Amino acid sequence: MAELRQNVITREWVIIATERAKRPDQFAREKEAIALPPYARNCPFCPGNEEDTSVESLRLGDEKRWQVRAVANKYPALSLEIKGKRKVNGIYRSLPAVGYHEVIIEHPRHDLTTALLNVEDVAQILRAYRQRYAEISHAPGMQTIIIFKNHGKDAATSLEHPHSQLAAIPIVPHQLRSRIEEAIRHFDDTGECLYCRTLEDELEAGERIVLESEHFVAFMPYAQLSPFHMWIFPRRHYSSFDKISEPEILDLAYNLKTVLAKLYYGLNNPDYNYTIRSIPLKEQETVYFHWYIAIIPRISKTAGFELGSGMYINTASPEESAQFLRDVQLPNVE
Amino acid sequence: MAELRQNVITREWVIIATERAKRPDQFAREKEAIALPPYARNCPFCPGNEEDTSVESLRLGDEKRWQVRAVANKYPALSLEIKGKRKVNGIYRSLPAVGYHEVIIEHPRHDLTTALLNVEDVAQILRAYRQRYAEISHAPGMQTIIIFKNHGKDAATSLEHPHSQLAAIPIVPHQLRSRIEEAIRHFDDTGECLYCRTLEDELEAGERIVLESEHFVAFMPYAQLSPFHMWIFPRRHYSSFDKISEPEILDLAYNLKTVLAKLYYGLNNPDYNYTIRSIPLKEQETVYFHWYIAIIPRISKTAGFELGSGMYINTASPEESAQFLRDVQLPNVE
Repeated sequence: MAELRQNVITREWVIIATERAKRPDQFAREKEAIALPPYARNCPFCPGNEEDTSVESLRLGDEKRWQVRAVANKYPALSLEIKGKRKVNGIYRSLPAVGYHEVIIEHPRHDLTTALLNVEDVAQILRAYRQRYAEISHAPGMQTIIIFKNHGKDAATSLEHPHSQLAAIPIVPHQLRSRIEEAIRHFDDTGECLYCRTLEDELEAGERIVLESEHFVAFMPYAQLSPFHMWIFPRRHYSSFDKISEPEILDLAYNLKTVLAKLYYGLNNPDYNYTIRSIPLKEQETVYFHWYIAIIPRISKTAGFELGSGMYINTASPEESAQFLRDVQLPNVE
Repeated sequence: MAELRQNVITREWVIIATERAKRPDQFAREKEAIALPPYARNCPFCPGNEEDTSVESLRLGDEKRWQVRAVANKYPALSLEIKGKRKVNGIYRSLPAVGYHEVIIEHPRHDLTTALLNVEDVAQILRAYRQRYAEISHAPGMQTIIIFKNHGKDAATSLEHPHSQLAAIPIVPHQLRSRIEEAIRHFDDTGECLYCRTLEDELEAGERIVLESEHFVAFMPYAQLSPFHMWIFPRRHYSSFDKISEPEILDLAYNLKTVLAKLYYGLNNPDYNYTIRSIPLKEQETVYFHWYIAIIPRISKTAGFELGSGMYINTASPEESAQFLRDVQLPNVE
């Protein structure tokens, strides 16, 4: 039966439209992926072309045989070069787009994606995230760091070579602030972290769990916004991503890689975004906020209904989709 | 200079990324549109196939030569047939997807779109919206009506024949509620409607105005979320769309048609969504809330940054885009 569900963390409503529902496997991408070469001469992110990228801020691995690099985005949305003052003038509020906009080149190989990397390679990507997050978090004026990945055209990527991005911005976005307010309200009313409570209840229910590992749990939210939308929560309560420990990095690498591999093999390499949702930089550890990763396969399109209501119509059942992904067998999981 | 701007109505932030900016005409669609036939034998919305649609709730024009029809959506996201109770059980909140989901068939011709219709035809579409809005607003349990249009594939339309949709839902979406709260706060602090104030200030600034008509003003928001995103505000303060008067209908038809024609000719028929943002049904007239139309051309894609922050990166300048649209000459405006 079609029903409306509310996500208590985001307060967003979704229509789980079972009248229109497809079977999980019907969301698989139809066309075959174009095979990429392991190395592309003109790719600025391939080894040998290091001088084609902007200022490098991090290199993991050997100096000559790097594993992960972070470089300034060549077409940045935010920049440290920008000068100017914040203006608040009636309805007009603006400030210069001062900030960091970096690209994390995830691997030397042009043709590999997180789903196909080994766990240690994925751990290196996460270590790069952690290091740049921690370094930038002390920069003056920065309020929020957003780490995200665009995989595939429908997820708005512009370069094939596997990469993700980090943006440090001088404000706290409204969406993040309103989720924090909601989390505080829940804590004040109940004495518990809303995220810890959600994780506990989802583990007990079980039906939306995709993968449990030692330190992380991947699951589909009860009020899932779109087909195969997933969250990965740390089991331990902490608010800021960069406080992740080394054993947690390794476990998250396994969890993230496995979940993305299940999407890759189960749905034929769908386009997706993921993002790390962490607390504002000047707030750090709190009892009420819990960082997590959101994975959003770009399988369905938003239309006027979503734009006009801020709600979503999901034509998949999160319970069936979670079952489907649990059942996907991987060829060679490390 | 790249800057962050905040929209005081939605509280959303956008990066106006002038480093990445294109000239307005570079947003034009490259490929030529496929010419549609005026009549398509297999189209359920074409005249003669009336029995292929679900229950009809409205017909304007002659009984035989109709101008606009409203019919039940054949694949509804919401339905009056659904039974069940609202459940609030810990973190799980749901209710049956009881509601109306209708299609408004905008014109008998298969190949025409709002930009190409004459003003009186567009007025008939708006009258259909008003009539169904008013009729459904009294239905028990309904809280919000969302009227929207999906034009083109990137706006997620599934049928070519020009149509729009109406959804009546049994809740107030979080996005609408939080905007109302913001409007109330502004009213309590200043004694004025935030929307009236915005309109007044935008008219005085002038640089983001696209079209002024007797009763409506089309403009690009200062913190425009994406290229050519526009709002059409009624000059008169009222909260609920169905309180629109007959002279206002005619003027809105002229304004909406002209703005869409400027997009059509200026950017080569881009895909777009529009939506009517109106107050919840059980609240009606207030001093603080003001209905309006939002038009969102689907020219750019959202990526991980938008999903992870709820912010937007706009690679166009709203001031330049408004100037561009003001300058678009229409072949034959009525």
